[in-house]
Amino acid sequence: MLLKPKALQKIAADMFGMEAALFVPSGTMSNLIAVMVHCRERGDEVIVGDLSHLHIYEQGGSAQLAGVHSTTVTTLPDGTFDLEQLESKIRHGYPDPHYPRSRLVCVENTHNIQGGRVLPLAFLQEVRALADRNGLSVHMDGARVMNAAVAQGVPPSAILQHTDTVSVCLSKGLGAPVGTVLAGPKDFISRAVRCRKALGGGMRQAGILAAAGKLSLQNMIGRLEEDQGNAKIFAQALLDCNPNLFAVDLAAVETNILRFGLQDLSLSPSEFCDRMAQVSESEEAALGQGIQVLMYPHFGNSVRAVWHLGISPEDTQLAIQKMQFVVSQHVMENSRAQ
Amino acid sequence: MLLKPKALQKIAADMFGMEAALFVPSGTMSNLIAVMVHCRERGDEVIVGDLSHLHIYEQGGSAQLAGVHSTTVTTLPDGTFDLEQLESKIRHGYPDPHYPRSRLVCVENTHNIQGGRVLPLAFLQEVRALADRNGLSVHMDGARVMNAAVAQGVPPSAILQHTDTVSVCLSKGLGAPVGTVLAGPKDFISRAVRCRKALGGGMRQAGILAAAGKLSLQNMIGRLEEDQGNAKIFAQALLDCNPNLFAVDLAAVETNILRFGLQDLSLSPSEFCDRMAQVSESEEAALGQGIQVLMYPHFGNSVRAVWHLGISPEDTQLAIQKMQFVVSQHVMENSRAQ
Amino acid sequence: MLLKPKALQKIAADMFGMEAALFVPSGTMSNLIAVMVHCRERGDEVIVGDLSHLHIYEQGGSAQLAGVHSTTVTTLPDGTFDLEQLESKIRHGYPDPHYPRSRLVCVENTHNIQGGRVLPLAFLQEVRALADRNGLSVHMDGARVMNAAVAQGVPPSAILQHTDTVSVCLSKGLGAPVGTVLAGPKDFISRAVRCRKALGGGMRQAGILAAAGKLSLQNMIGRLEEDQGNAKIFAQALLDCNPNLFAVDLAAVETNILRFGLQDLSLSPSEFCDRMAQVSESEEAALGQGIQVLMYPHFGNSVRAVWHLGISPEDTQLAIQKMQFVVSQHVMENSRAQ
Amino acid sequence: MLLKPKALQKIAADMFGMEAALFVPSGTMSNLIAVMVHCRERGDEVIVGDLSHLHIYEQGGSAQLAGVHSTTVTTLPDGTFDLEQLESKIRHGYPDPHYPRSRLVCVENTHNIQGGRVLPLAFLQEVRALADRNGLSVHMDGARVMNAAVAQGVPPSAILQHTDTVSVCLSKGLGAPVGTVLAGPKDFISRAVRCRKALGGGMRQAGILAAAGKLSLQNMIGRLEEDQGNAKIFAQALLDCNPNLFAVDLAAVETNILRFGLQDLSLSPSEFCDRMAQVSESEEAALGQGIQVLMYPHFGNSVRAVWHLGISPEDTQLAIQKMQFVVSQHVMENSRAQ
Repeated sequence: MLLKPKALQKIAADMFGMEAALFVPSGTMSNLIAVMVHCRERGDEVIVGDLSHLHIYEQGGSAQLAGVHSTTVTTLPDGTFDLEQLESKIRHGYPDPHYPRSRLVCVENTHNIQGGRVLPLAFLQEVRALADRNGLSVHMDGARVMNAAVAQGVPPSAILQHTDTVSVCLSKGLGAPVGTVLAGPKDFISRAVRCRKALGGGMRQAGILAAAGKLSLQNMIGRLEEDQGNAKIFAQALLDCNPNLFAVDLAAVETNILRFGLQDLSLSPSEFCDRMAQVSESEEAALGQGIQVLMYPHFGNSVRAVWHLGISPEDTQLAIQKMQFVVSQHVMENSRAQ
Repeated sequence: MLLKPKALQKIAADMFGMEAALFVPSGTMSNLIAVMVHCRERGDEVIVGDLSHLHIYEQGGSAQLAGVHSTTVTTLPDGTFDLEQLESKIRHGYPDPHYPRSRLVCVENTHNIQGGRVLPLAFLQEVRALADRNGLSVHMDGARVMNAAVAQGVPPSAILQHTDTVSVCLSKGLGAPVGTVLAGPKDFISRAVRCRKALGGGMRQAGILAAAGKLSLQNMIGRLEEDQGNAKIFAQALLDCNPNLFAVDLAAVETNILRFGLQDLSLSPSEFCDRMAQVSESEEAALGQGIQVLMYPHFGNSVRAVWHLGISPEDTQLAIQKMQFVVSQHVMENSRAQ
Repeated sequence: MLLKPKALQKIAADMFGMEAALFVPSGTMSNLIAVMVHCRERGDEVIVGDLSHLHIYEQGGSAQLAGVHSTTVTTLPDGTFDLEQLESKIRHGYPDPHYPRSRLVCVENTHNIQGGRVLPLAFLQEVRALADRNGLSVHMDGARVMNAAVAQGVPPSAILQHTDTVSVCLSKGLGAPVGTVLAGPKDFISRAVRCRKALGGGMRQAGILAAAGKLSLQNMIGRLEEDQGNAKIFAQALLDCNPNLFAVDLAAVETNILRFGLQDLSLSPSEFCDRMAQVSESEEAALGQGIQVLMYPHFGNSVRAVWHLGISPEDTQLAIQKMQFVVSQHVMENSRAQ
Repeated sequence: MLLKPKALQKIAADMFGMEAALFVPSGTMSNLIAVMVHCRERGDEVIVGDLSHLHIYEQGGSAQLAGVHSTTVTTLPDGTFDLEQLESKIRHGYPDPHYPRSRLVCVENTHNIQGGRVLPLAFLQEVRALADRNGLSVHMDGARVMNAAVAQGVPPSAILQHTDTVSVCLSKGLGAPVGTVLAGPKDFISRAVRCRKALGGGMRQAGILAAAGKLSLQNMIGRLEEDQGNAKIFAQALLDCNPNLFAVDLAAVETNILRFGLQDLSLSPSEFCDRMAQVSESEEAALGQGIQVLMYPHFGNSVRAVWHLGISPEDTQLAIQKMQFVVSQHVMENSRAQ
């Protein structure tokens, strides 16, 4: 008996307001399939943000495996694009053989590199209109679109009404071990099935994984609010602790990703992250226990911290304690050195 | 916490006599990655059997996604190749720019389309020598190589000493829900990691799946013998039932796949399979219950039946009963019709 | 002022009975573009002869550059296929995602490796019918289709009525320095223009080359008969000289390519070709001059000789003289050695 | 007899200070081959200017055909890049499988879209140093690098000492009908030969075209100065005629391409170009003859005019006359309309 992910796919399609959905092993494959299906003729081109996951973190798969050329539009700090710049990137010269054919605009919501920023609904509406005027499709890399929905207090379909297709991760904040759902029109999903098979994403008893994903969609969306609250609490704690050291834009902490700067050159992002991850005897003496916190140095001299199912409010308090300890140690060392 | 498949990978590498191993979502991806890594320069070519899974059932992914040209050698009924023909397919003219560069020979063990045939060790030894003489690598699509090992009564490493790399499925007979292990030299696996990511096969908490796969490798190999016994019992039952109707080569039933012909044109493979799958009132009356048996019509007017973890000796007896019922019904109808 | 190849393209389209035509730099590019346009969706497949130029001599470009999988059908000695085998290669299982989608059958006329064999019109008619029944297109690698037309005494359009598209070389027997014409339906050629540009085959003042090609189509077709006559004369001379040494099937010498075997193992094809190309003092003494003849060792222990604009009847007589000298020398040496 | 382009290739390699060179049909193919050879492993990436010919005008061939991902750096108005931005685009995270591997930086000299701008030698030296520090190769799309050499008063090898490879067009200003030379290290050219063949750029009697190209390299470089003088004269004439209408940066007119703006919104670039191309009775009455001048509307509300072998100083004077006529007509119409 093959366990199939049909129930999950049905629930996802309905929730996203799409005709059909497909369970795939990862967000990278989901985005790649989307590019393969939308840009399915030789010489097709995708327009993506220059800081999008698709452009930066997917090993150039759209070119490498799908033969699709990318042109980039500047990702603004809030994850959006300048619409005039976007329109200027469309290949109006097609079918002149010098040009690829623009077929697809990809947006990312929430935006990963920009720190979990939520795309405003008005922006999506404008992208939709622009795409329609120019005969383009819109795909959303919505790995964390459920966080956007929770932050905006709307159902995901209110967001996804502006896109043709969407990729949503069931792992990450939603807590399933493996898997992503790609959703869109029926014809799109039929083609996606073929691409998934060719890429090797057709898994045998995928239903076992899909069952976890189904649970995520049915029971885990509410809990995203907790992650988003924890992120804000930690952000505020950074400012409370040392506003000269940390650059935090509280208004930009919209979801479960916190991106903050280190303004004081005496402590680099990677050094700060190292200290948050290491446990020393002096820490145990000071705090009564060793607390290991994993954060990553990130684009533009910043640090990235992410909240999910595995990080409780208590863990967040412990992380704040650890951060305060690291900062106090650093300040002490620094004053000694001078 | 990320659950990683490292323990499984270590066990698999050791068991297969390889330096390293990688957990991937499917056999199709595993073979595709093997082709991508072995044939990694522009204009590289793979030599495959014309009835191999790679050539027939993987949507032409080696060309479509990896840009690798295939040349075929005739798959013989026992799953082997004629070695002279194989050697003649190598592009001895390289680097003449008219020619691709032959880089890889793929063998399949056990051979799926040919009915689970086990490649003789002497054949593998000769392929290895031929490949060495010509600077080629050898990859084994060993989705069911554990069945070959059981049938030959040797450890898998005795088979795999003749190949550079191997792909082994953990699902199928070994009973894990999802996943395949690709194994080979360390450098090969490092490159494979990159290909897996690009294809979207990098799964988040893959350790959950790998745990099942580990159990398969540790506890499920012994049970393959049972499948192979059941296949032989069913094969014998076909001959016992009606040697004019069924063409069965008992010596060719080496593992858990049974491929048999239908010699009597009054009953086509697809019709026979349909009847094995349908449950009628008359069957319930005759046998006391309805038994549904799933088999598939196959290449060259034949039927394919496969045994695995889910099919017990008792199930096999029920399938024989059903087969006898179907044949008796067919004979009765036929005699009426004449 | 750009010199454009429009006049040539119009003449070619009319001559071939096609809607439109395109001038491209080479036969390899022409065939590649044909595969790119006919097989334009992901997962499309082409069916080609296993000894076709496209499969053997074009560096696997259809896979490498166009991502198109090939399945092969056996090229018979006369350049045709077994039609049952051809039909069996079509992927009737599509859209099952295991399978590529068969889109195109390629035939080669005259057939290069098989020694300039002319495809019978009845065969083409049957391929056409088979393709129509199965929704496939037919492309002819007609690099030397004008030789076929001359041999069959029909206009090229009588041959090409059975194919959707054709690639015809202006160089080779037709004597133009550079260039090939790809012809087919208007929509096909519009797409081909884009592929040509992407491949870098859009040449600036291509009209200069096209002018030569125009002259070839208008004035050089008649002269192909001369090449074909010379080939037959040389073939007969081989038999007259030494029927034990040379294996020549006179009936198979249909056009300007002569492929003959060397039956006597004491003289290998490459040794024979070397001697035909070398000039010795003893030859000058015997023949009054040194004659250099270029032939190539070929598939299956054979030699390939080709006639074209640059080889006159007188040259052919000199080549026969040289051949007779080489054979007499060889026989003398051999008798001494024994 | 095959006419081969060896003499041309030798001359070009020597002139460019490279080990070897290869004659190819077009600049597009030359650049594509360069990308294919430099970025020859799966997951390789090229860094290109966002206004480069390679990125804008070659149909995305590096992705489409070569599977190479592009990341862009902003092309500055003088054709250079900001070096810090360039360095930030390198994938320092490799071999992390999320990232492509940066392999190649492409520069364009003179820069087409930016109006024939010449890259300063100091800039090239810095790009070279940056590339060396990061293990990257440097390719120059030097379609018009001879114009740069003439403008800078240096031999081309003084420019090309900073790049690994270069593509130089023989047509355009140098006046040959067809062809481009790709030059670089021997090993690079050996690989390029294979790529050229696969793409279909291996032409039969290419020597006929190469002979013209040889003449171009030997005799036509001196004449580029004339083109560059004509461009300056025309630029000055625009300012003399109407500095309110035309935006011309005389210092930026470095070679044979003139890019100028139209500041007065009453006359769009495409309207101006249309009028320069049309001949009216009133023009014939006013100027004594009809003069047709072909210019193209271009990026950012500008017009592009190019000088070459076919445009003499006299032609330039006629073009100035025509421009003055068009402007006077426009001014007249405009004043009437108000």
